[in-house]
Amino acid sequence: MRIGAIEAGGTKFVCAVGSRNGEILERSSFPTTTPDETLDQVEAFFREHQVERLGVGAFGPINLRTVSEQYGTIGNTPKMAWRNFPLLQNLRSRLEIPVFIDTDVNVASLGEYNYGVAKDAGSCLYITVGTGIGAGFVQNGNIFQGYDHSEMGHILIQKHPEDDFEGACPSHRICLEGLAAGPAIEARYGKKGMELADQNNVWELEAYYLAQAIMNYFVILSPEKIIIGGGVMKQDKLYPMIRKQFMNLLNDYIEVEDVNQLIVAPELKDNQAVKGAIALTLQD
Amino acid sequence: MRIGAIEAGGTKFVCAVGSRNGEILERSSFPTTTPDETLDQVEAFFREHQVERLGVGAFGPINLRTVSEQYGTIGNTPKMAWRNFPLLQNLRSRLEIPVFIDTDVNVASLGEYNYGVAKDAGSCLYITVGTGIGAGFVQNGNIFQGYDHSEMGHILIQKHPEDDFEGACPSHRICLEGLAAGPAIEARYGKKGMELADQNNVWELEAYYLAQAIMNYFVILSPEKIIIGGGVMKQDKLYPMIRKQFMNLLNDYIEVEDVNQLIVAPELKDNQAVKGAIALTLQD
Repeated sequence: MRIGAIEAGGTKFVCAVGSRNGEILERSSFPTTTPDETLDQVEAFFREHQVERLGVGAFGPINLRTVSEQYGTIGNTPKMAWRNFPLLQNLRSRLEIPVFIDTDVNVASLGEYNYGVAKDAGSCLYITVGTGIGAGFVQNGNIFQGYDHSEMGHILIQKHPEDDFEGACPSHRICLEGLAAGPAIEARYGKKGMELADQNNVWELEAYYLAQAIMNYFVILSPEKIIIGGGVMKQDKLYPMIRKQFMNLLNDYIEVEDVNQLIVAPELKDNQAVKGAIALTLQD
Repeated sequence: MRIGAIEAGGTKFVCAVGSRNGEILERSSFPTTTPDETLDQVEAFFREHQVERLGVGAFGPINLRTVSEQYGTIGNTPKMAWRNFPLLQNLRSRLEIPVFIDTDVNVASLGEYNYGVAKDAGSCLYITVGTGIGAGFVQNGNIFQGYDHSEMGHILIQKHPEDDFEGACPSHRICLEGLAAGPAIEARYGKKGMELADQNNVWELEAYYLAQAIMNYFVILSPEKIIIGGGVMKQDKLYPMIRKQFMNLLNDYIEVEDVNQLIVAPELKDNQAVKGAIALTLQD
């Protein structure tokens, strides 16, 4: 069976065709402009490369309450052209095949769970640290969802006593995203993370915030694997720093057999979301 | 069918007999001393009041990984006589009926979900604020559990800039429990909460911490109802204070239709846990 996958991101739509085992056969991407323009290209891609079903990992917020009439509709995004756009319904009527949808980060988590670093675990939390911060939790093969999808990047944590940055989240100022996403790093130091690669204190502070967030996710969700990806995590030295600060914070309250196996990098490079979108079409 | 229920607490074991619809027919309690002594009384109670199955909500930490050989065994509790005690196995061999077990707070959540204030909701988070802080999440009738049970009372939140209390949690100092449980209030002010009832600033600070915690649980778990109980919440004025601070923190990031319906007091008085333990025996 040929399965279609879309990673519907804020800057580009990645379209792919894959097989049931997660192998990617075709892949192409189109800039995210207006819904009409972008989805015409998406439709053309899937007319050329026929698939039997389609999985979508979408930027948000997006309505994922199956009982709602707005199920699969984009919500209050700053991208005005996409606000209130019925993405799921539009794709269904364009392609006339079964279409499944979830958030980009939930689908990325499902990708690593099925085909990546968590394929032997019973559950995983996938955290992405980039322009924003988001996380998706998969357990026993199912994406966790409450009344609506999680917004885990907006948790509140302790501010470092020597950090006088006022926070970059327009809604919450000093939530996790406001303190630790890429734009927060840039605003705090006046330089992008990449240009600060050799500044140890920058990454110790970043690890301070991410370790706290992971502590909170860990005591609430108790995931078997915690995968951290996204642009900011290209600074590989963050992983050992985060592990160390996390273990200090946890202080043996809950037993962790091997933190190097608990907190890990993703394995699927930039294909988590499309592979997860494939897996999304194969769920019960 | 007559169903047995135990709320196995650190100071007393409440034993009850109830019906499928949560009605309590018999109720008795015994002090928590040694496992032998306490469980002899429990056994005598259920020999006098025969039941077909038994549900238990237990103090913890307790091993709830069904695949583990230690499933149902108490863990690293400060109550030395109970450390490593195989509570589930002991009850099964004493009573020779099916016995089901979960944490006290998970079972309390299940009680409010099935018979209490959340009976018309699809999910609920039950938070208890007393000697410690714990929370249990129930969704679609099932208690949420990750790799192991949650320890939600130990999340990290922002310390109030004017609070110079050093925190009371032996493991994490200034986690939620260390800042906002009963012993933290007593240590901060040198008086029990009850004696501080008329001190508004005490409860505004308490609400400041609980609202942050609820914000974090809300963006991670997205529960339909958030129920706050426990000894500290006997200060009724906390509810409106928490609601107000929570809505300020959330800052419209996620739509809340009516915060008075979202954040509520429990309905089952002190019977959440035994009623939840009854419901635990009726799950698929």
